[in-house]
Amino acid sequence: MIRIYNGKVLTLENGMKFLDGEVWVEDSRIAYAGEKVSGQYLSGLQWERSIDARGGLIMPGFKNAHTHSAMTFLRSHADDLPLLQWLNKQVFPWEAKLTPEDIYHLSKLAVMEYLTSGITANFDMYLTPDTIAQASRDCGFRTVLCGAMNDFSQSVEQMEEWYQRYNQPGSLISFQLGFHAEYTTSRENLRCVAALSSKYKAPVYTHSSEGQPEVLSCRERTGMTPTAYLDSLDLFQHGGGCFHCVHMETEDLEILKKRGVFVITNPASNLKLASGIAPVRQMMDMGIPLAIGTDGPASNNCLDMFREMFLVTGLSKYRENDASVTDADEVLKMATLGGAAAMGLADCDTLSEGKQADLILIDVNQPNMRPFHNLTKNLVYSGSKQNVRLAMVAGNILYEDGEFFIGEEPERIYTKAEEITERIFGS
Amino acid sequence: MIRIYNGKVLTLENGMKFLDGEVWVEDSRIAYAGEKVSGQYLSGLQWERSIDARGGLIMPGFKNAHTHSAMTFLRSHADDLPLLQWLNKQVFPWEAKLTPEDIYHLSKLAVMEYLTSGITANFDMYLTPDTIAQASRDCGFRTVLCGAMNDFSQSVEQMEEWYQRYNQPGSLISFQLGFHAEYTTSRENLRCVAALSSKYKAPVYTHSSEGQPEVLSCRERTGMTPTAYLDSLDLFQHGGGCFHCVHMETEDLEILKKRGVFVITNPASNLKLASGIAPVRQMMDMGIPLAIGTDGPASNNCLDMFREMFLVTGLSKYRENDASVTDADEVLKMATLGGAAAMGLADCDTLSEGKQADLILIDVNQPNMRPFHNLTKNLVYSGSKQNVRLAMVAGNILYEDGEFFIGEEPERIYTKAEEITERIFGS
Repeated sequence: MIRIYNGKVLTLENGMKFLDGEVWVEDSRIAYAGEKVSGQYLSGLQWERSIDARGGLIMPGFKNAHTHSAMTFLRSHADDLPLLQWLNKQVFPWEAKLTPEDIYHLSKLAVMEYLTSGITANFDMYLTPDTIAQASRDCGFRTVLCGAMNDFSQSVEQMEEWYQRYNQPGSLISFQLGFHAEYTTSRENLRCVAALSSKYKAPVYTHSSEGQPEVLSCRERTGMTPTAYLDSLDLFQHGGGCFHCVHMETEDLEILKKRGVFVITNPASNLKLASGIAPVRQMMDMGIPLAIGTDGPASNNCLDMFREMFLVTGLSKYRENDASVTDADEVLKMATLGGAAAMGLADCDTLSEGKQADLILIDVNQPNMRPFHNLTKNLVYSGSKQNVRLAMVAGNILYEDGEFFIGEEPERIYTKAEEITERIFGS
Repeated sequence: MIRIYNGKVLTLENGMKFLDGEVWVEDSRIAYAGEKVSGQYLSGLQWERSIDARGGLIMPGFKNAHTHSAMTFLRSHADDLPLLQWLNKQVFPWEAKLTPEDIYHLSKLAVMEYLTSGITANFDMYLTPDTIAQASRDCGFRTVLCGAMNDFSQSVEQMEEWYQRYNQPGSLISFQLGFHAEYTTSRENLRCVAALSSKYKAPVYTHSSEGQPEVLSCRERTGMTPTAYLDSLDLFQHGGGCFHCVHMETEDLEILKKRGVFVITNPASNLKLASGIAPVRQMMDMGIPLAIGTDGPASNNCLDMFREMFLVTGLSKYRENDASVTDADEVLKMATLGGAAAMGLADCDTLSEGKQADLILIDVNQPNMRPFHNLTKNLVYSGSKQNVRLAMVAGNILYEDGEFFIGEEPERIYTKAEEITERIFGS
């Protein structure tokens, strides 16, 4: 067993309750998480490792509920362009040059960055699920694959095969049905996705209502908003999630609420592509479940849950012209519990006995975490990657004190990424 | 001499030119910054320390051009309130309980955080300049003190004394004339500041046009916007700077342009207090000089130039509904050259022979800095505190590999901060 002691424990079982306590991990699971255990109960227990948290915060890892990991190859290459121009000129043509093996290496680079930001699971929508899954498995990282079907890549048949193959109990990898967006997927193909959802009673995930032109174009083609159009095709019959949701009518939000569809908000990407600011406060007030994603490194460009958390609260305050809305507690729940629920990771949400040991240790002996008025606010308003001392997935420590334990040397992963970009973009 | 070699050098002498090179530091100054020096020229030179940059970026430190350092005691205490309520209920009453010694310790906590973010100088407006100066001096940190005069604290006579005392050549500390804001300072007192500015041909700095209610109230009282009102009192006769400038008319910007007044933008604070988004693009197009500040930790709540840089570009893109505006190069210049110019630190702006050695070393062997398409974009769009490997002020390394060299143990500074907050807020 691994013991992390002398910490503040936030199990998230009962809201924002911080206990002076400890966490025990046996194999891949939490064996104990709670108050300090007194000496008499510890005698006879064998510890594989005993880690002094030095007063640090032990809490569930962040869940990155929307990303395209392998787009690391485009970081700082495709910038400063409007969304559709960016997609058509700087993303799609270069993506066409990627091999499945490239995606393996580029995904690993992203996994490293997730770990530095305390992210212990990602919801990854990209071209070749098999090599994404392999990269995560080789790193010991948890990934929920998301179908990225559209008229040009991935078929419904492939999605069904992946759905069956990857949803095995006890695996680090799972799979959810998904398509890229209504504007890249024909009505016929969307009907096939709906049929698949019906067959497996499975939720469906997609990009939706990210930019104003996208919404206008959908209205022109279908007479409906993207949300209403997708709902009319029965895509949300078993729930699911929509990524972005920046430009939403109240009627759209009512559909999501009725269908139990998650909104996964991506504030940094929405700013950088000038897409807008999602009406997060209205969504919360209506009871729509929310989660947070970084989006891919081509649009964001970093994979940092701390930046996203600050943006969710800051942009919501700005949008509502009210500094009191969308507080730190609400945002921290989105980044953890909300993400787990959106991604179907019911076993990885709280630090509870028997759940998966997907946790992080936050160093509070850093100037940005002092004084201790309120740890949640310290995390959301002033926390940073620098505070992540340790990240554990399924009981394995993958990142600690700046070092990675992911089965491959960082330098080799960097070199691979540089070789791939060199090949694709030339020297 | 200290030698930092095997790096990418960004001197900022000629735009964004990255050299494969090295930097030499003798006492407090740059002895050399440029391309790699070949072996034959190195023989006979004595190095006090020789630091392998491991390919990292050696560049001028960031300048935090607006802050209230000692407000660390309010971090995560005064949140989620509108600006004026926040000031009147959560800031002013608690500040009244601070002693000058408290401000000494609380400022040190902020200095630590600046260093972790690669900030090598701050422009600090707060209650007791003497103990702020002492804190910075004891840490070896560079601080430009800013007068914070208003009708309740600091007098024009005190400001004049500080102006004379602190503007000595070769010191880490300097002083600029300033007042809190037009809404806390009577017309009579403002006239006295203008007279002082005239006497010393000195620029003047102040908060201005941060929130909409402030602008409306000024219009009601004076018939003018804050900018026009202050200009009518001759406060900008020798230039200076305005902090925030969120709610600005085109005529206001024309005044700033004409007077050569800097805008110091504080995007995170403006979001969190729901003040708004400054028209940074319009300011740039008009040729108004710009710098970036974190504002104090009570409003932000962290002191992180990376977060501010991303926000300057992201919010500008959002505000203009154009993803192509306000690119990374422009923002990086604001955070370095712009800040130095705004703060009167002409000797600390570029890495040039004879200038002050205020520099940072950015670790590029981190996942968020790969691949190497464009280092400026990597810094501004995906950089983080975690990438700051070393921060040097006036030739002294104050922060390296997560350790502080500021004359006092971090744990003692944390303990002091906790004791002070305990005393002020009770247990």
